[in-house]
Amino acid sequence: MFVETVKTEGLAHLSYMVGDGQCAAVIDPRRDVRVYERIAQRRGVTITHIFETHRNEDLLTGSQNLANRTGAEVLRGTTDEYDVPYAQMVREGKRVELGQASLTVVETPGHTLDSISLVLRHHETGESALGVFTGDALFVNDVGRTDFYPDRAEEVANLLYDSLHEKLLPLGDQTVVYPAHGAGSVCGQGMATRDFSTLGYEKAHNPRLQLSREAFVKAKTGEHHDYPPYFRKMEELNASEGPGLRVCPVLPGPIPVDAFARKQEEGMLVVDLRMAESFAGGHVPGSICLPADMIASFAGWVLPYDTPLGLVAASAEQAERAALDLARIGYDRIEGYLNGAVIGWAKTGRRVETFGAIDGPDFKAALDGQTDFTVLDVRSKPEVEEARVEGSTHIFIGELTGRLDELDKTRRVVTFCGSGQRAAIAASLLQRAGFEDVSVNWGSMAACQALGCRLER
Amino acid sequence: MFVETVKTEGLAHLSYMVGDGQCAAVIDPRRDVRVYERIAQRRGVTITHIFETHRNEDLLTGSQNLANRTGAEVLRGTTDEYDVPYAQMVREGKRVELGQASLTVVETPGHTLDSISLVLRHHETGESALGVFTGDALFVNDVGRTDFYPDRAEEVANLLYDSLHEKLLPLGDQTVVYPAHGAGSVCGQGMATRDFSTLGYEKAHNPRLQLSREAFVKAKTGEHHDYPPYFRKMEELNASEGPGLRVCPVLPGPIPVDAFARKQEEGMLVVDLRMAESFAGGHVPGSICLPADMIASFAGWVLPYDTPLGLVAASAEQAERAALDLARIGYDRIEGYLNGAVIGWAKTGRRVETFGAIDGPDFKAALDGQTDFTVLDVRSKPEVEEARVEGSTHIFIGELTGRLDELDKTRRVVTFCGSGQRAAIAASLLQRAGFEDVSVNWGSMAACQALGCRLER
Amino acid sequence: MFVETVKTEGLAHLSYMVGDGQCAAVIDPRRDVRVYERIAQRRGVTITHIFETHRNEDLLTGSQNLANRTGAEVLRGTTDEYDVPYAQMVREGKRVELGQASLTVVETPGHTLDSISLVLRHHETGESALGVFTGDALFVNDVGRTDFYPDRAEEVANLLYDSLHEKLLPLGDQTVVYPAHGAGSVCGQGMATRDFSTLGYEKAHNPRLQLSREAFVKAKTGEHHDYPPYFRKMEELNASEGPGLRVCPVLPGPIPVDAFARKQEEGMLVVDLRMAESFAGGHVPGSICLPADMIASFAGWVLPYDTPLGLVAASAEQAERAALDLARIGYDRIEGYLNGAVIGWAKTGRRVETFGAIDGPDFKAALDGQTDFTVLDVRSKPEVEEARVEGSTHIFIGELTGRLDELDKTRRVVTFCGSGQRAAIAASLLQRAGFEDVSVNWGSMAACQALGCRLER
Amino acid sequence: MFVETVKTEGLAHLSYMVGDGQCAAVIDPRRDVRVYERIAQRRGVTITHIFETHRNEDLLTGSQNLANRTGAEVLRGTTDEYDVPYAQMVREGKRVELGQASLTVVETPGHTLDSISLVLRHHETGESALGVFTGDALFVNDVGRTDFYPDRAEEVANLLYDSLHEKLLPLGDQTVVYPAHGAGSVCGQGMATRDFSTLGYEKAHNPRLQLSREAFVKAKTGEHHDYPPYFRKMEELNASEGPGLRVCPVLPGPIPVDAFARKQEEGMLVVDLRMAESFAGGHVPGSICLPADMIASFAGWVLPYDTPLGLVAASAEQAERAALDLARIGYDRIEGYLNGAVIGWAKTGRRVETFGAIDGPDFKAALDGQTDFTVLDVRSKPEVEEARVEGSTHIFIGELTGRLDELDKTRRVVTFCGSGQRAAIAASLLQRAGFEDVSVNWGSMAACQALGCRLER
Repeated sequence: MFVETVKTEGLAHLSYMVGDGQCAAVIDPRRDVRVYERIAQRRGVTITHIFETHRNEDLLTGSQNLANRTGAEVLRGTTDEYDVPYAQMVREGKRVELGQASLTVVETPGHTLDSISLVLRHHETGESALGVFTGDALFVNDVGRTDFYPDRAEEVANLLYDSLHEKLLPLGDQTVVYPAHGAGSVCGQGMATRDFSTLGYEKAHNPRLQLSREAFVKAKTGEHHDYPPYFRKMEELNASEGPGLRVCPVLPGPIPVDAFARKQEEGMLVVDLRMAESFAGGHVPGSICLPADMIASFAGWVLPYDTPLGLVAASAEQAERAALDLARIGYDRIEGYLNGAVIGWAKTGRRVETFGAIDGPDFKAALDGQTDFTVLDVRSKPEVEEARVEGSTHIFIGELTGRLDELDKTRRVVTFCGSGQRAAIAASLLQRAGFEDVSVNWGSMAACQALGCRLER
Repeated sequence: MFVETVKTEGLAHLSYMVGDGQCAAVIDPRRDVRVYERIAQRRGVTITHIFETHRNEDLLTGSQNLANRTGAEVLRGTTDEYDVPYAQMVREGKRVELGQASLTVVETPGHTLDSISLVLRHHETGESALGVFTGDALFVNDVGRTDFYPDRAEEVANLLYDSLHEKLLPLGDQTVVYPAHGAGSVCGQGMATRDFSTLGYEKAHNPRLQLSREAFVKAKTGEHHDYPPYFRKMEELNASEGPGLRVCPVLPGPIPVDAFARKQEEGMLVVDLRMAESFAGGHVPGSICLPADMIASFAGWVLPYDTPLGLVAASAEQAERAALDLARIGYDRIEGYLNGAVIGWAKTGRRVETFGAIDGPDFKAALDGQTDFTVLDVRSKPEVEEARVEGSTHIFIGELTGRLDELDKTRRVVTFCGSGQRAAIAASLLQRAGFEDVSVNWGSMAACQALGCRLER
Repeated sequence: MFVETVKTEGLAHLSYMVGDGQCAAVIDPRRDVRVYERIAQRRGVTITHIFETHRNEDLLTGSQNLANRTGAEVLRGTTDEYDVPYAQMVREGKRVELGQASLTVVETPGHTLDSISLVLRHHETGESALGVFTGDALFVNDVGRTDFYPDRAEEVANLLYDSLHEKLLPLGDQTVVYPAHGAGSVCGQGMATRDFSTLGYEKAHNPRLQLSREAFVKAKTGEHHDYPPYFRKMEELNASEGPGLRVCPVLPGPIPVDAFARKQEEGMLVVDLRMAESFAGGHVPGSICLPADMIASFAGWVLPYDTPLGLVAASAEQAERAALDLARIGYDRIEGYLNGAVIGWAKTGRRVETFGAIDGPDFKAALDGQTDFTVLDVRSKPEVEEARVEGSTHIFIGELTGRLDELDKTRRVVTFCGSGQRAAIAASLLQRAGFEDVSVNWGSMAACQALGCRLER
Repeated sequence: MFVETVKTEGLAHLSYMVGDGQCAAVIDPRRDVRVYERIAQRRGVTITHIFETHRNEDLLTGSQNLANRTGAEVLRGTTDEYDVPYAQMVREGKRVELGQASLTVVETPGHTLDSISLVLRHHETGESALGVFTGDALFVNDVGRTDFYPDRAEEVANLLYDSLHEKLLPLGDQTVVYPAHGAGSVCGQGMATRDFSTLGYEKAHNPRLQLSREAFVKAKTGEHHDYPPYFRKMEELNASEGPGLRVCPVLPGPIPVDAFARKQEEGMLVVDLRMAESFAGGHVPGSICLPADMIASFAGWVLPYDTPLGLVAASAEQAERAALDLARIGYDRIEGYLNGAVIGWAKTGRRVETFGAIDGPDFKAALDGQTDFTVLDVRSKPEVEEARVEGSTHIFIGELTGRLDELDKTRRVVTFCGSGQRAAIAASLLQRAGFEDVSVNWGSMAACQALGCRLER
């Protein structure tokens, strides 16, 4: 028997392949599915079943793709809310045999009403659970968010409580926990940065599992969660059977400077994948800074779906990987990338923008004195609640585009986050919006803490 | 019969593998020799001979490495100037059979006194030459430099004239020319950007071959050539049999920020391989900007051999490739690369430097008005002679470190080159030297020409 | 200016990318066109033109794919024989500028009536030709075949003579020759194994260029050329605009043993890509031996287009590369590959076939004595004419399937070729056809010559 | 906090990297250590500690290499049996902090006297164990072997019992188990094919943990374990500080056929890495069949350390990977690989050997009738005890070379294992030893079971 974890960095998405003997199942596959076929080939097994533990809101599922290619059947929880044409709905107790291993469905509603978990057992050890694939019900050190049914907030929080305490914990302390997300996911806030845990360990230490029902429901209904605009798009696509889901992404090609500029004039949005410092040092006017390794976390906040995208990249390889990362969350309208990048652009005599930067020591000195600028902190709410720079303005980066009028365009703004990277994204959004004097603070909160800046907590 | 060209980008170095039947020869191998072994394996041949057309001054030869690994013998021209312990000296007419093909030595002194060329023939076609490997005697659209014997300048120019007109051209118009360098090499100035030519084409169009003996000698003795300081190091190592030449380079590992900073304090020179814009947007104080794809052209000018080097890179892969590029020109003291790069550095609260940038339109506007800055043009002499910005100061980038006192440290300096990349290297050298206000001109001459800036010619 | 050669191994197909300044042209692109885009990106140029020197009969062109992706226009010779909807027909003298370089069309009919060559010149050197892309008109050491118009054999031979002597040779000895094929191609027999030549060298040594018009026409009309059945398919597809040409090939996935066997029963043809010895040592009954590196040369002879194919491979990577090689010649119906390969097949208790092998010494001993077997030599006609084993039967491997009834199924057959690899393909065809006792001769002609077997010449 | 598992296939060796914040530790690194550096780079951590849970007998440790490159300290259990010059000995309770995580030493003697386990905890959850790295004390579904101190068999079995019941199990059911080996390792027999477990699950289901002390000691002292000859070599090298351990393996190059044959005559042992069927279909006389993916399991049984090795491979890549696999268990005398492989060998007229094959149906038919051959079963003892072919002879493949005189060289032998692969290794050993008629049974026991052959149990 084997369990292989396929982690999609950025999305912090964990999918799994479980197999024994000749057969295997995939749990929550991502859109680009060759990774599962490769495991099947290496392990010498056939993919016979695909499970979806819940309707994914943060990425495109690969269930259809994989089913089409392998002939496996797709199984998911039962709901009458919507129809998923490519999948078969299953109920509590449904058991799939994979050689000597088996996966049994346990209904664990709460995150969504049709959430299921899958209990992994081995024939030789009877009903004792080896592991459980918990989807978005239980994470390492956290539990799933329950804010998708605002009208039924208490009800679903209670459902999740029941799922956790009556369905999952009774499987026993020895049970390995395999959640659908790890730290960094937008699907939870308090997840630990380790991918592994056991029910015993979670029972003892997961803060949410220490609460009484009342306290739990109160906590869950009081939580604030970001809801990036792309969630709705993902949900819609994941319940449909459109051609877009089945076709693999086309690799982007190079676009000459003139054609790129023309496309930009015609409405193409320019997305700059290079590292934040590169963007600060020189970029195409009007472009959005989105360093390649931050696509999964922030593209869904800052990029529209109905606009063609043009990339600026450090290399063809970077553009290609980014196109795949974007495809995983449904961005398929990639026109190509700027041939020659920013130096090539500059050589045609076109405008190149920069923005200023301020390092930790200068920032501290400014804070200690009389700052003549707005410190714009774009971190998430929980980060800000932990510690913030005195006098700073907080707007979460995901909401920045919609809240720009809260800021004074003519005053100098220094953007601020944990290290300077999200701050660079923010600076690019401000510049696009016509802010006149924008700087980024390299090091940001990490440097502040290292240098002992005065912070509010 | 086959000829495979192994081009080492950056160095613009062309080495060749020629074979037929079971046997093959390598001409002017580079230090990292597995590429030749791979061709041998794919072609099913054995490397039996290695030729050096001349003593390389611009890169480390791989002859010893390859001979040690394959048992092939190393052949080179005859000289009594120095000894090359690992090679056997050969004379005019020496012929090596490779299956039905053969390589025959033709002595073609001029670039060096012991330069040889190798004539490729096929058994079936008698004395008719198929191709000739001309080393540094004849390039595409140029001939070798003859400035290595300043006391005997006329003599060696005459020797080269004889080599070209009495040894090479008589091989016939149909002969393919295989030189040791292509455009971009420091070994010649007027090379065309194509790698291929024929003696017939060169005879008709190579400017140097259109000259009478007198005019040729006059032109050659009047030429100016850069002589990067690393040439002497290469010559010395290439004529020795030290262990350093035989050991393959060790891949660099990550160094934590604190250790990196400590090493820098203890004398390690920090070399930043990221693209020029990244450097401008934020860099470790005291570091030298040397974008990864410019190592071959500029490392030998700006990096010392006796100082350990620490890298700042966009990725581990970039650091590893750079270590190989540096090893090809003898830099083996790579300590490692900065873990977390510049953002990681900034997070510890350390100083991060930037420099300003000016784009084409603003530069033109400044030139059209009253510039209050020094335009420092760091291009090579021939480029400057073709066209230059009025009022600009010219110091070739390779000489900048030694001529910094010609500039006013307190005045604003805008560095300038062909596109902005060498300008960024220059800006980093100025900043290291304490210049207070340094900017780079993105686009530089290319943008000036696109925008119609006023130029002197 | 640059010329980059893209060689497709196996097909011995040579395509080229030529560029200067900002622009580039591709000559005779293959179906999978990303290789050209990558060069464009690395060189910083835009692909503006695509040339087809003639209608390819031996591979699928990528002109449509590349034009769709880049917006370049497709240019080809003029004909009224058929229509090529995606291309524009051009005439003698049409000149395309690429920066300072240019390509000029020269009509060189003979191989096909609409064959063109393209002359490469540089602005600075006037009418002097740097190189010429000769398509299938002139090869290194050979000229194009002229057997595609059997009714007009003399006419087209005369046309080719004119093209060679009046259009190409006058370009001058110095001109580099860039043909569309190298040695190993089915498009010519006498090609040298080097990829490079010059018009001067060919003029002096190419046997076909030494002939008078009369002798040339006589020789060309008397030539025998193989005409693999897939040629017609390629011609048809290359003149059409079907969707099949535009879609990139899908990578094959693993198929479990049982499903694979079932598909085979339902008509899937099993193609074994492993090395010849693996096939001899154990294979799926009914499978065809086609070692991966022989696909380009022999798939078109032995594989039908209207049958789905199932692969047996040494690894997933081998299956994937083979699928690409097959796609280049239009085989798109790849079902997948056998999961677990032959050992996996054997483990289910299914039949595994082998065939015997005889090595050089035993074969020689048998020849010296009384052979009790048929020696079936499957080499090409020219190879056999050079030397053959006394008493051997010759049937070219491409024709074997259609001529099996010339052989005695009940007598032992030893298959024979140059080294044993084609012999293994032949042995598999015999076994499929029910021959009872088949062996392969490892080493074949090479071993015979090494051991001094008695040969007829 | 993160735990990354580095699995070395073949050896079924599991090493781990554990980190939090800026620091990380590596547990039981393998010889080629760049994999750990890459993780460090990706995670942004520094490797500060290296642990060895016990003296490895089945592979070369990379502790020295990694310590040299990173400056980390090497920690191991305390012993006075021998000296490990590069490591520091630690005792129960030694605690290493890694950010908010910690590793605490627990002495768990039994497998070796100095075996330690490492308990992973997180600062926030106090003494509760998250996981435990158990080295060779506890595996998934099995426990470590205790046969390394034959004079003290009962004592060490009792020690292991104490380690398991008094040290490990008390850590709690929730504790994740991270052993040093997975299924397929020579370090245990009953390991499950999954890499993960928990103490709770093992407590309930691991057969060895269900036994009373008396039963446990009896079982352990009665166990039979293979002791491959290379174990002694590994132990010796792992306790030394020789140069051999520090230098990275040199990649093998191609050797021409003649030179390869000469080296073989001079004593080089030829190791054929190709798949078993390839070997059967044709191989160099005297070579040993050792398919590349079986190196880790069988090289240590069949290859001597004091003989240079020559490889026969399907590709240069296969030879290179194999050289690395061999280096991991101390085989550094790789001369190179046969250029042209077996076809190249055959072309020179040299002898090529084959052996016969019999498939499942024919084997069953023979068993059902009157077999005229010896069935030589080379599986391990436990496999044979489960089911065997009636009348078969059993000699474990590891012992075959030493027990050849138990077999009749003149009688036909059919080798037999689980699938046919080990059988091919065995067949090669028999052929080398002069057995006249050797065949392999493709499918072997798997086919027998599929076909319902008569078996003894």
